[in-house]
Amino acid sequence: MYLREHWYVAALSSELETKPLSRQILGEHVAIFRTEAGAVVAFADQCPHRGYPLSLGTVVGEQLVCGYHGFTFDCEGTCVAVPGQDRVPGRANVKTYPIVQQGLWVWIWMGESEPDFSKLPSTPWLQDAERWSAVSGVAKIDATFDLLVDNLLDLSHETFLHNGSIGTPEVASTPIDVEVDEEMNVVRVSRHMASVECPPFYSRTTGLVGKVDRWQDIEYFAPGFYLLNARIARVDDPPLEDGSDDHAFHMKILYGLTPSSDGKVIDFWALSRDFCIGDDEVDRFLEKMQSSVVQEDVDALNILQARAEEDPHAREVSIKIDKGGLSARRMLTQMRESVSFQ
Amino acid sequence: MYLREHWYVAALSSELETKPLSRQILGEHVAIFRTEAGAVVAFADQCPHRGYPLSLGTVVGEQLVCGYHGFTFDCEGTCVAVPGQDRVPGRANVKTYPIVQQGLWVWIWMGESEPDFSKLPSTPWLQDAERWSAVSGVAKIDATFDLLVDNLLDLSHETFLHNGSIGTPEVASTPIDVEVDEEMNVVRVSRHMASVECPPFYSRTTGLVGKVDRWQDIEYFAPGFYLLNARIARVDDPPLEDGSDDHAFHMKILYGLTPSSDGKVIDFWALSRDFCIGDDEVDRFLEKMQSSVVQEDVDALNILQARAEEDPHAREVSIKIDKGGLSARRMLTQMRESVSFQ
Amino acid sequence: MYLREHWYVAALSSELETKPLSRQILGEHVAIFRTEAGAVVAFADQCPHRGYPLSLGTVVGEQLVCGYHGFTFDCEGTCVAVPGQDRVPGRANVKTYPIVQQGLWVWIWMGESEPDFSKLPSTPWLQDAERWSAVSGVAKIDATFDLLVDNLLDLSHETFLHNGSIGTPEVASTPIDVEVDEEMNVVRVSRHMASVECPPFYSRTTGLVGKVDRWQDIEYFAPGFYLLNARIARVDDPPLEDGSDDHAFHMKILYGLTPSSDGKVIDFWALSRDFCIGDDEVDRFLEKMQSSVVQEDVDALNILQARAEEDPHAREVSIKIDKGGLSARRMLTQMRESVSFQ
Repeated sequence: MYLREHWYVAALSSELETKPLSRQILGEHVAIFRTEAGAVVAFADQCPHRGYPLSLGTVVGEQLVCGYHGFTFDCEGTCVAVPGQDRVPGRANVKTYPIVQQGLWVWIWMGESEPDFSKLPSTPWLQDAERWSAVSGVAKIDATFDLLVDNLLDLSHETFLHNGSIGTPEVASTPIDVEVDEEMNVVRVSRHMASVECPPFYSRTTGLVGKVDRWQDIEYFAPGFYLLNARIARVDDPPLEDGSDDHAFHMKILYGLTPSSDGKVIDFWALSRDFCIGDDEVDRFLEKMQSSVVQEDVDALNILQARAEEDPHAREVSIKIDKGGLSARRMLTQMRESVSFQ
Repeated sequence: MYLREHWYVAALSSELETKPLSRQILGEHVAIFRTEAGAVVAFADQCPHRGYPLSLGTVVGEQLVCGYHGFTFDCEGTCVAVPGQDRVPGRANVKTYPIVQQGLWVWIWMGESEPDFSKLPSTPWLQDAERWSAVSGVAKIDATFDLLVDNLLDLSHETFLHNGSIGTPEVASTPIDVEVDEEMNVVRVSRHMASVECPPFYSRTTGLVGKVDRWQDIEYFAPGFYLLNARIARVDDPPLEDGSDDHAFHMKILYGLTPSSDGKVIDFWALSRDFCIGDDEVDRFLEKMQSSVVQEDVDALNILQARAEEDPHAREVSIKIDKGGLSARRMLTQMRESVSFQ
Repeated sequence: MYLREHWYVAALSSELETKPLSRQILGEHVAIFRTEAGAVVAFADQCPHRGYPLSLGTVVGEQLVCGYHGFTFDCEGTCVAVPGQDRVPGRANVKTYPIVQQGLWVWIWMGESEPDFSKLPSTPWLQDAERWSAVSGVAKIDATFDLLVDNLLDLSHETFLHNGSIGTPEVASTPIDVEVDEEMNVVRVSRHMASVECPPFYSRTTGLVGKVDRWQDIEYFAPGFYLLNARIARVDDPPLEDGSDDHAFHMKILYGLTPSSDGKVIDFWALSRDFCIGDDEVDRFLEKMQSSVVQEDVDALNILQARAEEDPHAREVSIKIDKGGLSARRMLTQMRESVSFQ
């Protein structure tokens, strides 16, 4: 059911410390922690002895000690000590997961095969604090992965669900362009709004007043990474012919979509901007506003999931705004079928 | 399983405003609201687009706008606008339910067929503020419809469960008379108590002290409406031969029994009296005391249901006081069988 | 599944009063109460009339009155009164359970057969306030009976889970001796630690400072009673040849393990000491510290159970410290098989 041979966001970098974090990813419980030297490590969250969660253990130096009976593991998952005897049984090792920190986010490889680093999404906007200022957060949703994809691929909902922060009437009323790259598993949805209202999210950070040109260029890299390229500029002030666009304001709105367990998904987000660099007040404002936008999505998806569980085969009426979401659904279906054919 | 071709109480009139109410009735989620002009409207609580609850939408004039992507419906459930395009798909309409306000209560028709207004219970005591002063309320019970019927048809439980408010020893000790009208689906249970203690519920509102005659004449109109005609009078002071009874105090205790979903029932109540008309203080006293009586029933039924789920076939020992409840059970069984035979 | 023909702790003596206690034991709901004369009585917690829990009833003299419709029972469970009629139906009696108070604990017999008093555990330490001062408590655990047995039979976990109260490094590092008495269904696990750190639990009550000799001699009387004989003494100061040991400090740590329902167990505990007799301050200190030790076990077992439900067949790696727990598992398996063979 899960698409395993991919990278998923496992944690915000700020969540990880020597006290382990317990997180369920693709149905598996994972204990993620930093060693005292700072290395990021991910273990199967289950002691081989009696199954106690290793996330309740303690990091001592470069080792993790289980909190129940003290089985002790090094960073490769090798058991190096057990209580009451000197001999360590060979079967007492714990599974580890490939894990990589990239700026604000930490990615995990959940595949059976060797990690494919060519598939690791590139997120320079979370790693270059000179050019991009970023904030990030995480929310748990009691809904399927697919409902979150639906939500993010159709931004017309901003007008209604996120009215007052990022939603304006023109988002819902402006048609979209959709492109599908079946080879690279990317869905692109573009909505270019000319001379429209600038919502508080952008007006209070860019300082622009009155009408603006507002572009939303979505790139969904199935399954786990979503990038919304937002461009806010004065009316009729497009990028130059050479592509340069220094007079506009750009924001990268990133989502890491990580299936947790059946009917549960984790929603990692980050906002990165090329203006007001290093401005803490803008950081706090965006963090607060985005947290509340995400909470609106969480509430909506939780109730949608509850209703879907009662009536799994409810009919749907689709219209043009759904083209992005329907394309993503088809892509995910194809990817899942191609896994089950293997 | 549900007896659909009947009217059920859907809401207190005081619960309805332009902000929609979400209520599950006979297993169906219903969004109930008033338009800005005041009309009462009931929709299936599910947008035809992506299933989002319409109860989370917004009333604008005489229309409801879905809170997710803005599909817009008029009072007949016809979709009149969708985002991103001018053409409205013909399949995007939403189901509506016949709904009628009668004084303090609002009734809904959940049947497949056309609403049968001859079946709509008559409740003049909730609609004639000159002659009857009424208060009302609602409680949700995590128990089956049938457990609530059992509870209301055997008032001997007042002595034990509602001791201190409406229960006195004589309620349990006085035998009952039971009549069954199979044609009209009515069960009548009468208990006429002569020269008995007057409980606080009546003594503090009527001002009667010492012994009274207290009559309880139940009429259960299966499935959804229950009327307890209570008469409190001085000892040996019966109604006149012409039926007039002005010297006695009368209270109509109404219950609307509305199945919500499997193992859940909604308990609407109203108390209407022909004395202390318009007296706010008496209103507040009765409201408070009845709320606490209803809560005692709710607590009892919740625990009975929890136990019944563990042991669905527990044996029962029935005695004479159970004749009303057993008659109601038989009537409901017959009504259900006659539906499934159709 | 349950081993029924045994005594289990049903309640702390301090829990019982005329207001009945509702407790689920071996899957059965039991109402336990004292009559006004002080007798301890246990009823099936279900009125024969409509199934209402008798634990919600009221004790009047030596009788219990159901809180719903007033069915009334004497201490033998015989129904002696019903509402609305003089004749009491013969089938309206309620099942009773043999129940015995022994000092701080009350034991119940859940068997189908007559109670076997030879199987009733002896607990003189809870009944002789002159020689033994005792405190007791109870905790509910959302875990199987078997997980609690596992926990108590392997005390090496004290070092990690109960660090700071009773755990020291030497508990985990000291090997154990295990003896199994298959005839009497007893598992004995001994760990004698010489010249070791004295944890706060003992140092603050005995006044011993520096190194001590610390013995842990477990006797598990399967299925429901566990006794840890703890001995704390100055280094190299063993019991005399005649067995007398007055210069050492002894504590009896008792657990009553009572299966409640599927995946739930009740953990009764008592601490009895032969020093600081009658010292209230020591009582409060031990009560507080033991409550927090038990809570650490509860938290650990709750999470172990939650994980076990997700993955019931997780592999285990056992080592020497597990010999006691594995012996107890085997004994319980044999006892269950011998029941199902009968």
